[in-house]
Amino acid sequence: MANSNSIEQYRNAFVSYMERKTKVKEPKNLYDPINYILGLGGKRLRPVLTLMTSDLFGGNYSDAMDAALAVEMFHNFSLVHDDIMDDAPLRRGKTTVHEKWDINTGILSGDAMLINSYQFLESYPSDTFKKLTSLFSQTAIEVCEGQQYDVDFESRDDVTIQEYLKMIEYKTAVLVATAMKMGAIIAEASEEDTRAIYDFGKNLGIAFQLQDDYLDAFGDPKTFGKQVGGDIIENKKTFLYLKSLELAEKGKKEGLIHLYSIKPEDSEIKVNTVKSIFVNSGAVEEAKTEIESYTQKAFHALSTINMPEQNKLMLKQFGENLMRRTV
Amino acid sequence: MANSNSIEQYRNAFVSYMERKTKVKEPKNLYDPINYILGLGGKRLRPVLTLMTSDLFGGNYSDAMDAALAVEMFHNFSLVHDDIMDDAPLRRGKTTVHEKWDINTGILSGDAMLINSYQFLESYPSDTFKKLTSLFSQTAIEVCEGQQYDVDFESRDDVTIQEYLKMIEYKTAVLVATAMKMGAIIAEASEEDTRAIYDFGKNLGIAFQLQDDYLDAFGDPKTFGKQVGGDIIENKKTFLYLKSLELAEKGKKEGLIHLYSIKPEDSEIKVNTVKSIFVNSGAVEEAKTEIESYTQKAFHALSTINMPEQNKLMLKQFGENLMRRTV
Repeated sequence: MANSNSIEQYRNAFVSYMERKTKVKEPKNLYDPINYILGLGGKRLRPVLTLMTSDLFGGNYSDAMDAALAVEMFHNFSLVHDDIMDDAPLRRGKTTVHEKWDINTGILSGDAMLINSYQFLESYPSDTFKKLTSLFSQTAIEVCEGQQYDVDFESRDDVTIQEYLKMIEYKTAVLVATAMKMGAIIAEASEEDTRAIYDFGKNLGIAFQLQDDYLDAFGDPKTFGKQVGGDIIENKKTFLYLKSLELAEKGKKEGLIHLYSIKPEDSEIKVNTVKSIFVNSGAVEEAKTEIESYTQKAFHALSTINMPEQNKLMLKQFGENLMRRTV
Repeated sequence: MANSNSIEQYRNAFVSYMERKTKVKEPKNLYDPINYILGLGGKRLRPVLTLMTSDLFGGNYSDAMDAALAVEMFHNFSLVHDDIMDDAPLRRGKTTVHEKWDINTGILSGDAMLINSYQFLESYPSDTFKKLTSLFSQTAIEVCEGQQYDVDFESRDDVTIQEYLKMIEYKTAVLVATAMKMGAIIAEASEEDTRAIYDFGKNLGIAFQLQDDYLDAFGDPKTFGKQVGGDIIENKKTFLYLKSLELAEKGKKEGLIHLYSIKPEDSEIKVNTVKSIFVNSGAVEEAKTEIESYTQKAFHALSTINMPEQNKLMLKQFGENLMRRTV
């Protein structure tokens, strides 16, 4: 039987730990933006996964706090720098760091966050520290590579589905995988099990991002957090777009390429036309199949893990809830 | 007797190692800028210090290569991000990364360099890895804090000499100190000795930066690498400026403050007037005294180290050469 805290309990424990660990420090212009972005809230999905995984592998989630904090700090670092690159005015409905302060502050505070995230791992003994830090660096570099691919794709018209999947794996999924693997390492799970939980997290992360692409176009505007159709308006080459190019007949394909070369002031017609091409080409069906396929890969990886069935069930339910979400 | 390679030999060995370790990788838009900035040359002062220190403590410099590479990679990361913040068009006489590519590329490639520098340390066993990585993070965060203080000072008119010294210690000196301490750690020097070599490097680094401030105003335009008077033209609050405010009589002080509030198109009169205030107030003499004082502190730290006298002499000569430079 698991030390089964609820998601809510993990989140609360994490947030209060984080608040204790991130005090006001000098120079204020470096540290205030860090506390600001960390304080904007969010689901705290990644650190919760670290804590939960540690418990489910028979560890004690409180031992995993610093790793959880490293993951959350890194995630927020990447948000601060990505928001500069994307020229984004808002993050979680609040002003982004570089808008509230300036670009230089965003760069430097982001750098400090990346370094801080390494420092949180110093509470672990040498061998664990090295395992966690190496994994963390590998993931961090992949997140950068993913971001670079994402930027590169904007100006390319020959992006393949395979490249797109690699991009979302790097940009999003590996950090989810690493958040879980760190929890497993701290709980002293076996090599095989830490590898398997990584695969669970990675495949779930890819499914999650594909789901996000789908919801961005077809989600319920009442419950979906972002502007529905935002990716289409921004001409973002998601799975749905790339698959439609592959599947749509010539005329529709040319129409789609044209629509992705313009940004009309009134986007409604464009969004609706694109969505109908997504549906009629069969791309939406393919996306659902792909989401299901990655979810099943995740569950298969989970099934190989040496862990009480009860605990696996909790992770499976967590995954199912994530995939059933409409927001 | 030391394994006494010459500075030139260390530099050559380092550069060829670095070139082997930094190959062309995908995505090119992430890694090309990294290879570009690393390839711009420079004195390679910090990695040379890592290698030399390791040898002088009875280690083998080739074991210190990865630490030297981490230090050089970190240094170049800080240059790329600082150049964005300073809006600098040139670095070592060549186009800066964000000018040659764009700001986003500078941010992301810089991030990848910071992460890469941690990764180079992974070749060391767990205990050494943890020592090196913790030292490295502490230094990295201080460099960020130093950069933030430097930025903050631009818009403050109450900067004290003490604050200025802390800023240059963080922004410049601690990385020199850490470069040497890493070499000592890898050579398995004692705790006391690694602390003492850190103090040697730190005090020498502060002396070096104060010397740089002096040369910026009074160096020989024929041999000084940068534009002589550049700090004065940019109204940079260096030791000479802050000390002159402290020492100059009321009229001169007000004149100096006025001159540091303008940026005249023809800067010659301004530069010459400021320089005469620096000299006549006694600030130049004080700067020389301060440089000598930090150099002596460095040499005192060196004297406490358990190491063949011959080897200490090499480090002392290295320090003396650095302080005797006119470029």
